[in-house]
Amino acid sequence: MSTYDIAIIGGGIIGASTAFELAAEKLRVIVLDRREPGREASWAAAGMLSPAPDSPRDLPLAPFAVQSLRLYPQFVAAIEESAGKATGYARDGAIEVFFSTEAGSERDARLRELRQLGIAAEAISADTAREMAGATGAEVHAALFLPHEGTVEPRLLIDALLAAARNRGVEVRGSCEVSKLARDGDRCTGVVAAGEKISAAHVILAAGCFSSQVASEPSLSGLAPTRPVRGQMLALRPKTGGAGLQRVVRSQRGYLVPRKDGRIVAGSTLEEAGFEKQVTAAGVAKILAATLEMCPELADAELVEMWAGLRPGTPDDLPILGPANVAGLWIATGHYRNGILLAPATAKLFREFITGSNVSFDVRPFSPSRFAGRELWAAQTAT
Amino acid sequence: MSTYDIAIIGGGIIGASTAFELAAEKLRVIVLDRREPGREASWAAAGMLSPAPDSPRDLPLAPFAVQSLRLYPQFVAAIEESAGKATGYARDGAIEVFFSTEAGSERDARLRELRQLGIAAEAISADTAREMAGATGAEVHAALFLPHEGTVEPRLLIDALLAAARNRGVEVRGSCEVSKLARDGDRCTGVVAAGEKISAAHVILAAGCFSSQVASEPSLSGLAPTRPVRGQMLALRPKTGGAGLQRVVRSQRGYLVPRKDGRIVAGSTLEEAGFEKQVTAAGVAKILAATLEMCPELADAELVEMWAGLRPGTPDDLPILGPANVAGLWIATGHYRNGILLAPATAKLFREFITGSNVSFDVRPFSPSRFAGRELWAAQTAT
Repeated sequence: MSTYDIAIIGGGIIGASTAFELAAEKLRVIVLDRREPGREASWAAAGMLSPAPDSPRDLPLAPFAVQSLRLYPQFVAAIEESAGKATGYARDGAIEVFFSTEAGSERDARLRELRQLGIAAEAISADTAREMAGATGAEVHAALFLPHEGTVEPRLLIDALLAAARNRGVEVRGSCEVSKLARDGDRCTGVVAAGEKISAAHVILAAGCFSSQVASEPSLSGLAPTRPVRGQMLALRPKTGGAGLQRVVRSQRGYLVPRKDGRIVAGSTLEEAGFEKQVTAAGVAKILAATLEMCPELADAELVEMWAGLRPGTPDDLPILGPANVAGLWIATGHYRNGILLAPATAKLFREFITGSNVSFDVRPFSPSRFAGRELWAAQTAT
Repeated sequence: MSTYDIAIIGGGIIGASTAFELAAEKLRVIVLDRREPGREASWAAAGMLSPAPDSPRDLPLAPFAVQSLRLYPQFVAAIEESAGKATGYARDGAIEVFFSTEAGSERDARLRELRQLGIAAEAISADTAREMAGATGAEVHAALFLPHEGTVEPRLLIDALLAAARNRGVEVRGSCEVSKLARDGDRCTGVVAAGEKISAAHVILAAGCFSSQVASEPSLSGLAPTRPVRGQMLALRPKTGGAGLQRVVRSQRGYLVPRKDGRIVAGSTLEEAGFEKQVTAAGVAKILAATLEMCPELADAELVEMWAGLRPGTPDDLPILGPANVAGLWIATGHYRNGILLAPATAKLFREFITGSNVSFDVRPFSPSRFAGRELWAAQTAT
């Protein structure tokens, strides 16, 4: 029987960054992943680091998202230093474009919204947007520049992060599915994974859209009501000598994220399709239509890759962050479209939770108790 | 130095079917392919066996196309018997659908055009079309059924055909690029391929869009002015329990061809893009738009494969079939969008040419001399 201070269920961006952070406290940390760590939603993500809300339902997330974006430079620097690997991080800002005859007033309303949330943004002309992006179409009639936004290459990031965590002594186990949580009375004492009992003082559930399956026993019901929300993605490679993309461009219908190798990642869809990770006729059609609306010059770009990921959705689209109703059990899931962006703040939050430090974020909107309607075990609420 | 009766340049559907046919005459036949035989335009094709013209430029081809379609059952039977392999041949007919407010009159005009060409077609209602196809959208307002059309699975067909040809004694060599035609005065006496002289009484140039490169020496100039015309293709797999497709459905914007395993091949584009076989943002968008217009129920079908092929285009969109201006040299190329359909008639034609039999087709519109404006070497014109 192995014994750890922390067992983290899920080797995606949230589990791995939390492990990396906790390992700095000299805690013995193990990360357990049902398949290959980092190959689910983290792998599929576009890597757009944007705290700007997509819908009114995102508004309660904005302060936490803004804080996490601020943590990114040091987060990435620590990973790259520990791993000796690049993460593809860039801080080039993002451009939002508007098309309709109402483009100007839509842009102005968006600008007000962003400023109220403390998100830096400035109105720019369509010509300036074209110049700054390198490729936006003649149908763009108004635009915004969000100077603080960044991008990361999630596949590089997660691989670097797993290496960095290992270098800090974290044990990462793949093909190691957690079949149940180990209990001793009211306390969670570890997990049973691949037939083995793994004891841990703290268990953190960070299994993304699979979290609801792990926390499926009746006494945990409602703690991690995650569901898969499919997002389809494409990668384009502009023709040699053709249109490149200098920075993120997005509209209300889609987004384009440049990679350092010249590829452009285009997304996405929001679909309730169970655990099926297919790309579909309608999904690809939608992404391409949004892409060609934003950047008609990408018409002859090669379509080099298509994939889909399963975001961990929750009933209110907000993450689930904090102590469960069982001592020793913590929930860090439901990051929906924002797992990559929210990783630094989530990792810092859980370091504070576990070490009993003052918590630097207001995470009341994200409480695990909000769906279950249960009392939290008082001693675990560090806030 | 090897000696053959016939050397065929190009191991695609045209070269392979001609070889298979000539081998039945107990002639020594070799097929030379620059790469892997059968992996260019033949591999990329949809396999729709339709003699119906797509544009007025196709009209001179219709009689030859109709004859080739009639030859298909015996062509396929001979291949399948010799190879012991399936070709995916089916004779389920095809449905043409019309969308606009003018759907009825467009359909009626098309029906008249087809009947004038001797192509069987009958007007059917949109409801009947839906029933017969298994999946066509509510936007279809009129339709035609073409009962004699068939389909084949080109990847199965070309592999079976190459095996069948080998079983008849044909030598098929891959990775064997022809660098020049061997000449003895006015006569073509074989080829030089991969550094080796291969002697042959007859050389047949059947290298698809690469034919113009093979026949690039000044004295042959204009004989085979082929160029690559890119066609992008997709394969969809309907969701389990979802919309399947019973037979070919096509509109003026695209077509859908069912495969026996339930997949649906969707095409295509017509692009001047040189020898670049990419699939592009605009190409895939166009095919998906046409697909979803015809069959909205395919929205959630999985997009399982994308590819592109290079059709051998010619200045007038018609094939180039017959003797060159050099004794011993024959041209069988430029089949553009119709290589799979025209293979049986082309193979039969060249058997007749080479053996000096009466030629059963009127191939005057396809004469190799029409671009060069040269005199044919009289003794070779078997007609």
